[in-house]
Amino acid sequence: MPSICSNSNWGPMRKIDEWTITQAVLDAQKECPSPRLKTIVTSLVSHLHAFAREVKLTEQEWHSGIQFLTDAGHITDDKRQEFILLSDTLGLSTLVTAQNTIKPSGFTESTVFGPFFVANAPEFPNGADIANGAPGEPCFVSGTVRGEAGDAIAGAGISVWQSDEDGFYDVQRPEVTQAQGRGNLRCREDGSFDFKSIIAAPYPIPTDGPVGKMLMALGRHPWRPAHLHFKIAAPGYEDLITHIFRADGPYLDSDAVFGVRSSLIVDWKRHAPGAAPDGSMSVVAYYTVHYNFVLYPKKRP
Amino acid sequence: MPSICSNSNWGPMRKIDEWTITQAVLDAQKECPSPRLKTIVTSLVSHLHAFAREVKLTEQEWHSGIQFLTDAGHITDDKRQEFILLSDTLGLSTLVTAQNTIKPSGFTESTVFGPFFVANAPEFPNGADIANGAPGEPCFVSGTVRGEAGDAIAGAGISVWQSDEDGFYDVQRPEVTQAQGRGNLRCREDGSFDFKSIIAAPYPIPTDGPVGKMLMALGRHPWRPAHLHFKIAAPGYEDLITHIFRADGPYLDSDAVFGVRSSLIVDWKRHAPGAAPDGSMSVVAYYTVHYNFVLYPKKRP
Repeated sequence: MPSICSNSNWGPMRKIDEWTITQAVLDAQKECPSPRLKTIVTSLVSHLHAFAREVKLTEQEWHSGIQFLTDAGHITDDKRQEFILLSDTLGLSTLVTAQNTIKPSGFTESTVFGPFFVANAPEFPNGADIANGAPGEPCFVSGTVRGEAGDAIAGAGISVWQSDEDGFYDVQRPEVTQAQGRGNLRCREDGSFDFKSIIAAPYPIPTDGPVGKMLMALGRHPWRPAHLHFKIAAPGYEDLITHIFRADGPYLDSDAVFGVRSSLIVDWKRHAPGAAPDGSMSVVAYYTVHYNFVLYPKKRP
Repeated sequence: MPSICSNSNWGPMRKIDEWTITQAVLDAQKECPSPRLKTIVTSLVSHLHAFAREVKLTEQEWHSGIQFLTDAGHITDDKRQEFILLSDTLGLSTLVTAQNTIKPSGFTESTVFGPFFVANAPEFPNGADIANGAPGEPCFVSGTVRGEAGDAIAGAGISVWQSDEDGFYDVQRPEVTQAQGRGNLRCREDGSFDFKSIIAAPYPIPTDGPVGKMLMALGRHPWRPAHLHFKIAAPGYEDLITHIFRADGPYLDSDAVFGVRSSLIVDWKRHAPGAAPDGSMSVVAYYTVHYNFVLYPKKRP
């Protein structure tokens, strides 16, 4: 055994340089009780170190990185999630979503969750107006939820959320204290659902924090194409987290969070004032959009 | 040009999967005005994505990661820096320090900065007691600061900081409002300096935050070997950021932040009560430690 006071036989922990540090960190976690955690952190540390060596990260750049994460942490609260925004804009969210939701064609594609979902949104019956006062042109949304053989999934739970015509979600407006443009519904026996809302609009992701500054520095714009979020859940099926996108809008080919999938782009039809799908007479122009969702069966463990 | 409404000719941004996402993110920053930032983010995104694919990161694990960063951000304030602690415990700080301070042998090795430095610490003359009431056995610290040819660096600025006998820095004690165990001094004309303080003690890095939980989950202990921090600056020389470590203490081979270098391990000599180096009579046992620092000349740009 090397003596602590001896100048010879220094262990590897005392001869660390920019190359040997990686193995020293991995050696330190050799007693990790969770094989999965060990696998994850081994890969994370290896890639983190490889990155820092590859670009020969300077101490000043390292400080900037620490400051960036600190700023992201401080702007994050119960209504703002800068780390999800960071993951979204760096494509990590899309990668993780994609590799965990590989499905044969015919099933509705998943896309990113985003930072604006709110648990415990209000419940609505079919046909209700979920906009609840959010500003925007009226839009009647309808669809079906089916399984792989085309069978209706009665009672499937649907959560929807969207921004208003100014591009803000309710949680981004300090003056709005009630849910607007979000709600939970259930499919009818035949798998159909419908509700009234407002037209989805393109919007920039929040640019007043470090992620916005990052996009600017990278020469990237912060815009997302107009979309409506869906989370659909039913027993025996994988949860589906997705959006539908407006075919007639900009940014479909440069979504700031890489969420667009061609199969999720839909025509949102504009109608002149007159008889609306809910039987009322609309004095303003309105939109309709329809989408048929196909859920993927849950694999038995 | 592909039509936005056409179902054919979808651009690559609409066909993203877990493999094509990486190039899509890199394409998005092709107009980045800073070549260096582009290089850094290209490498960062490539390694981040490779990591997520390599371990097939699940959505639940991704959520845990977002929560970890959120918790780290929320515990970080002007006195607590969880992201530096994270970088330190994952070996990134040591890697960045090492690759930016490569020096021929004979020059004092650098090591990690750590999260406990405070700018604008009090100024002291040589011989002063920088402990300023911090609890611990007395320790008389002396040394010299020289250049490569052994020439004294008169007036070199020295910042020192250390924990007390309980392992806490002043900034970790809410009841302590004045600097304790830290200060700034200047070398004499002959390059020498000395001050009185207390003996350095091993201590655990803060374990009440996400980094502490991470170490526990990884089967790692949070302890650092006893050490005294130095930051030494003089015109014409690279700033030296380093520690000196106690040869007689534990954890030299398992420092939680990978900061130990064999050349920085020093004998701290214990003396019976009696005449102390400052001419006083010590009624308690005391320590002495001496280190000769050699600064590396600044390279001309």
